Amino acid sequence: MEQLLFKPMSRVAICGGTHGNELCGVYMLKELQVSQQDRFRSFSLTTVLANPRAVDVCRRYTEKDMNRCFTNTLLSAPRTEVTPYEVTRAQELNGLLGPRGSEKAVDLICDLHNTTANMGLCIIAHFSDWVGMHLFKYLQEKITSAPVRLILFKDPPSEMYSLESLGKHGITIEVGPQPHGVLRADIYNLMREAVDRALEWAESFNSGTVFEGGEIEVYINVDKKDYPRDPETQELNAAIHPQLQDNDFCLLKPGDPAFMSFSGETICYEGEELYPFFVNEGAYYEQNTAFKLAQRESLLLPSISVKKQQ
Amino acid sequence: MEQLLFKPMSRVAICGGTHGNELCGVYMLKELQVSQQDRFRSFSLTTVLANPRAVDVCRRYTEKDMNRCFTNTLLSAPRTEVTPYEVTRAQELNGLLGPRGSEKAVDLICDLHNTTANMGLCIIAHFSDWVGMHLFKYLQEKITSAPVRLILFKDPPSEMYSLESLGKHGITIEVGPQPHGVLRADIYNLMREAVDRALEWAESFNSGTVFEGGEIEVYINVDKKDYPRDPETQELNAAIHPQLQDNDFCLLKPGDPAFMSFSGETICYEGEELYPFFVNEGAYYEQNTAFKLAQRESLLLPSISVKKQQ
Repeated sequence: MEQLLFKPMSRVAICGGTHGNELCGVYMLKELQVSQQDRFRSFSLTTVLANPRAVDVCRRYTEKDMNRCFTNTLLSAPRTEVTPYEVTRAQELNGLLGPRGSEKAVDLICDLHNTTANMGLCIIAHFSDWVGMHLFKYLQEKITSAPVRLILFKDPPSEMYSLESLGKHGITIEVGPQPHGVLRADIYNLMREAVDRALEWAESFNSGTVFEGGEIEVYINVDKKDYPRDPETQELNAAIHPQLQDNDFCLLKPGDPAFMSFSGETICYEGEELYPFFVNEGAYYEQNTAFKLAQRESLLLPSISVKKQQ
Repeated sequence: MEQLLFKPMSRVAICGGTHGNELCGVYMLKELQVSQQDRFRSFSLTTVLANPRAVDVCRRYTEKDMNRCFTNTLLSAPRTEVTPYEVTRAQELNGLLGPRGSEKAVDLICDLHNTTANMGLCIIAHFSDWVGMHLFKYLQEKITSAPVRLILFKDPPSEMYSLESLGKHGITIEVGPQPHGVLRADIYNLMREAVDRALEWAESFNSGTVFEGGEIEVYINVDKKDYPRDPETQELNAAIHPQLQDNDFCLLKPGDPAFMSFSGETICYEGEELYPFFVNEGAYYEQNTAFKLAQRESLLLPSISVKKQQ
């Protein structure tokens, strides 16, 4: 397989607080601002508190989930009196870190997130981004304190909606379980290790290291399942079943317990064999998602290295 | 020891949603409304969604923490245009379930709460209420699926501030760990068992059962500890240490790790030997409380039974 060449990662951005109640990223930024200051590197490092208003009130967002606002439509929408804060802020961030798809965009964005689901350390990347997938491969090789998995989204580039899509390359670092509005040292430490290793990778890449290709295991986002709800009020009729709770990335088969009604009855999963993730993520109740579903596949990565400057 | 006589528990109230993002109680009420309807009993059962506005927006409160609003001062304060919703609602609840201290007050209130702390099933009662303590003793004897502990508050009755204080007798049923805004079936099932057993106890009490006294172990709330904070900004300088996290009710000694700074340094506990609880409760960040501290003591309960009606 051929070796792909990419420009150096000259500008790297670490973003946190995209969701204001996911606290590891918020505190990580403050720590990075101290510990990474004046450190000599082959790249410039920017830290960005993505949604300061949501951080101030410790909520996911103030008017609109910002991590769904980085669409072409919203990024180019004219601002009016009723434009939600998060759309305005997404446009600002596109100016700061992008514009998306342009030569001016930063080379690599790592956006820091937490989940209430028992997902360990997940890297979320786009199917088209070999750099993001190589970063995952490096983290998986280096980090042994928790499972490290890769979730791939296959949306067409024209439908990208999340912050890390502003960069030439980008990943979301998603770590859980942690309640929203709470900071757990174990989860913070795991995220810290991921961030340190990601910066180490960028440094190594820029210095000319050839990152060998090879097979990786990926979870491809293909579906989602809502809670059983009252058809009239839309209120929940059941919770995630104890046998499914905390079992993200364990194969779910038709007939397996999926939900438990409030009187104690088991409701079984109906659907094809898939891998659940984001199981009982608190922010997804309002998005009609009890869990997302993935296909597990093997993917062959090409080797990559830096394109020497002329 | 003498046997104390109490009037029958003729009116029992189960309250949930006092904090709108503690979801077990909210869904328990709906289930009780169906399952307990038309069931013959020696008492009338009322279910009360205590803070419906906070439940609607899935937040702890809208303007003011309602479970601090049941003070004599706030319950008797005149309503003005700037009276917070929660104060108005607390006054309404005092009319519905109280008035506190009067003959009209309901006999027993169980208020349902969740915590992000790893506290299992806790009964919180007032030092002056033998009925609440006997209810705990019964639950501890009957429930084997999780640790059941009793937390006692010793505030003078004139300084009571929480909902269950409206009744002649009252307990808070506190179950965790569960993220706020999330419903976990295991935590729900544990709370459900506690509610079912509490109703069973009231039925048995009314029928004339003598509940024998004896020694119980109690945790008496005596102190609290805040996070290390930046003196200027008041922002956190550290998180709960991994060795303390999830270890509620394990003796904390001077020199034990209590916090971990964001660069990884351990900060040790300074203070007397006490039992921490509400460790890393999400709602307490804004109340300057990293954890509360208790003395563990033995307490001798008198026997109790119902006073036969004339």
